[in-house]
Amino acid sequence: MKLYTYYRSQASFRVRIALNLKGLQRQDIFLHLERGDQFAAEYRAINPQMVVPTLMDSGVKLFQSLAILEYLDEKYLEPPLLPADPQARAWVRGLALINAADSHPLIVPRVRNYLTQVLKVSDSERLAWIQHWLGAGLQAIEALLAENPASGYFCHGDRPTIADICVVTQVTPAKTFDCVLDPYPRVMRVYETCMAIPAFADAHPSKQPDAE
Amino acid sequence: MKLYTYYRSQASFRVRIALNLKGLQRQDIFLHLERGDQFAAEYRAINPQMVVPTLMDSGVKLFQSLAILEYLDEKYLEPPLLPADPQARAWVRGLALINAADSHPLIVPRVRNYLTQVLKVSDSERLAWIQHWLGAGLQAIEALLAENPASGYFCHGDRPTIADICVVTQVTPAKTFDCVLDPYPRVMRVYETCMAIPAFADAHPSKQPDAE
Repeated sequence: MKLYTYYRSQASFRVRIALNLKGLQRQDIFLHLERGDQFAAEYRAINPQMVVPTLMDSGVKLFQSLAILEYLDEKYLEPPLLPADPQARAWVRGLALINAADSHPLIVPRVRNYLTQVLKVSDSERLAWIQHWLGAGLQAIEALLAENPASGYFCHGDRPTIADICVVTQVTPAKTFDCVLDPYPRVMRVYETCMAIPAFADAHPSKQPDAE
Repeated sequence: MKLYTYYRSQASFRVRIALNLKGLQRQDIFLHLERGDQFAAEYRAINPQMVVPTLMDSGVKLFQSLAILEYLDEKYLEPPLLPADPQARAWVRGLALINAADSHPLIVPRVRNYLTQVLKVSDSERLAWIQHWLGAGLQAIEALLAENPASGYFCHGDRPTIADICVVTQVTPAKTFDCVLDPYPRVMRVYETCMAIPAFADAHPSKQPDAE
């Protein structure tokens, strides 16, 4: 498999974790998002949204990290990244989407650049924006973990799912951008549990060959 | 089923379409997002993220629209909202996520309010923001439809999937906010095809009892 990736991309991080959990080998192709590699015509022809990741699996082109995770889970069955029961699957997917749909898209480079370049917001306003939206997601995930007896060291049951992957990609930028994490002990328990697993730790942005 | 909803919410619109396609009856419970009903303690206990929709299915609480769509598709099999083949499923989910993860979350009321109340952006700057992010999503979806021979009147094959639902919730706000839609003929063909189907048309914001 070929992964078009950037070390700091949380969406790429999700896919790296899933590939590692499934024991799948990949070849990385690095794009530097801050330098604008994603806007090159060659990459735009591969990913018209001009974002990472894109995963190529034997000629099959895959985009959008959660769609890639679902694909990997359907095609490479072990270990499963979703529980078996529809109710539990919905809960896990809902948690994942709080990160992947309602938090992370608000803090990606293209949005941060728009805030700075078009709306001319100051550095401190931009940091407050990032902390606000990450915090809103963390608060919701913490409350949902608190009400679900199936959560604990992982979001659901005794092994990582798509939800845990997305908890990690919620907490990782929250650490980078100095969010206060004390109010989220359940979230942090999941994060610490996951980051002790090599599949997660090896996928961390700081461990990637293109890390600066 | 009980649906906590708001007529203008595109995420609620997605769930209404899916319930209609599956032929499932619902009881609506209306929250007025602009008046802040979602922040009431009673609703926060149901949905800690304080967003709509929430769907209750015989005591099972469901949140995040795409997670709800997947749940409905797993539990109520006919008609399917995803193709059978993993590659096609990934494509459909990827398209849906361009709307549900990378476009829509940037223009929801809470973000528009933050732009106005905290960042003090002008009405015209706010409109430009909305049009920019909706346009970016439309451009990507159009390009992906253009390269996929399985697309046409629908995003994939000859019946609606989760991707078509999300194309409709991409185009609907684009119309409200006066985006130029001429550059997206394939997107608009899907939109027109879907809106001719009662399950879609009846779910439109303007047709809801709480519409103003």
